[in-house]
Amino acid sequence: MPTRVLAFDGDDTLWHNESRFNLTQAALRDLLHRHVPDADVDGHLFEVEMRNLGLYGYGVKAFTLSMMETAIQLTEGRIPAGDLQVILGWGKSMLTEPTELLDGVRESLLDVSARYSLLLITKGDLFDQESKLARSGLSEMFDGVEILSDKTVDTYRSVLRRRGIKPDEFVMVGNSLRSDVVPVVALGALAVHIPYHVTWHHEHVLEDSLPNEGWHRLRAIAELSGLLASIDRD
Amino acid sequence: MPTRVLAFDGDDTLWHNESRFNLTQAALRDLLHRHVPDADVDGHLFEVEMRNLGLYGYGVKAFTLSMMETAIQLTEGRIPAGDLQVILGWGKSMLTEPTELLDGVRESLLDVSARYSLLLITKGDLFDQESKLARSGLSEMFDGVEILSDKTVDTYRSVLRRRGIKPDEFVMVGNSLRSDVVPVVALGALAVHIPYHVTWHHEHVLEDSLPNEGWHRLRAIAELSGLLASIDRD
Repeated sequence: MPTRVLAFDGDDTLWHNESRFNLTQAALRDLLHRHVPDADVDGHLFEVEMRNLGLYGYGVKAFTLSMMETAIQLTEGRIPAGDLQVILGWGKSMLTEPTELLDGVRESLLDVSARYSLLLITKGDLFDQESKLARSGLSEMFDGVEILSDKTVDTYRSVLRRRGIKPDEFVMVGNSLRSDVVPVVALGALAVHIPYHVTWHHEHVLEDSLPNEGWHRLRAIAELSGLLASIDRD
Repeated sequence: MPTRVLAFDGDDTLWHNESRFNLTQAALRDLLHRHVPDADVDGHLFEVEMRNLGLYGYGVKAFTLSMMETAIQLTEGRIPAGDLQVILGWGKSMLTEPTELLDGVRESLLDVSARYSLLLITKGDLFDQESKLARSGLSEMFDGVEILSDKTVDTYRSVLRRRGIKPDEFVMVGNSLRSDVVPVVALGALAVHIPYHVTWHHEHVLEDSLPNEGWHRLRAIAELSGLLASIDRD
């Protein structure tokens, strides 16, 4: 069946995200090294984030809480409250920064929206994602928006069922192998992977655990329209 | 048209919520009074929460971040990090506590689910609300779940439109005049208000700003089935 519904991930597919987290994490590293010069800030923060994932889920608020926990633990409670206030402020800045689109996004969406029904399927914090979408100026291009707490075979299946979409008419486009490719291919739908220049460690997938077919990899979103045309011709 | 879809709010309508926040807030008051005996903790926290609402939205993570900000500000940065770690821990406890149902909820839902299609429409943090619903044991009773970042005329309208529900076949049941009654009545649908014994200050509505008709008030969810039967007989 030809593609009917084209779904996009948001973070690091349509707009920059991980690079904002990386910048903040670098600032945290500098701040904490003033108190504990030898601390493995990145390693400890990642452990704290993974431990908190089942409680907090994804997003900037979860990240801010995990940064504060990391700061208190690594300094053994010696960090002054003023420094923790600085960390709180970083979280707020991340929530108000303009949504910065990746190159070619607006043009590519305009192009494919003439031929397909477009969905946005992102995971993370509801409030934060809605706010980013609003600031992106892209809302009007989407026929629907799904913000999921996590992207799994089950959550994709329920979106498709609820919207009456068959897997063989659905294509998912995103930067994460773990969230946008593996579960989509498992459902029998097609996935298009467009890597971002940085990937959060949690989203990494070993290349040899990837499915052999059912997905494509592009270097940039500008190549999407051509790929879809060639798929639907076959 | 007879009622077809019956929608329920979650927090303080199906399960206890505000009372958990109140207990934590009382603990914050005690903790901060050890540092600043005369501080107006409740007043300051409410101001901080309102200032952060547009950034953080609703939910436990937002509340935890606002508690920490309040603690740092009221002590002028003198609070030890160990006390801030205690506050972080309170937030985590709130996220893991069992979901405690209000009296009569399970029986009433079972009763009305035989006659109506049931929706859950809650606002707040996506991850937290999904987790509470899962822990409530009520998921199976609902034909659909909508977690909104806020409840307004626009967000209700889009839920009804997306699900193909006409306002005159829709009834919303909830404890908040601001979130569950006023916007629903404005859409031309019916609302049923079941007050909870405590209401967050932000959810207060002046009684004289309430619509004159289009809604009912019950003392308990056990009275719902009878009310609906009498409405649909008319």
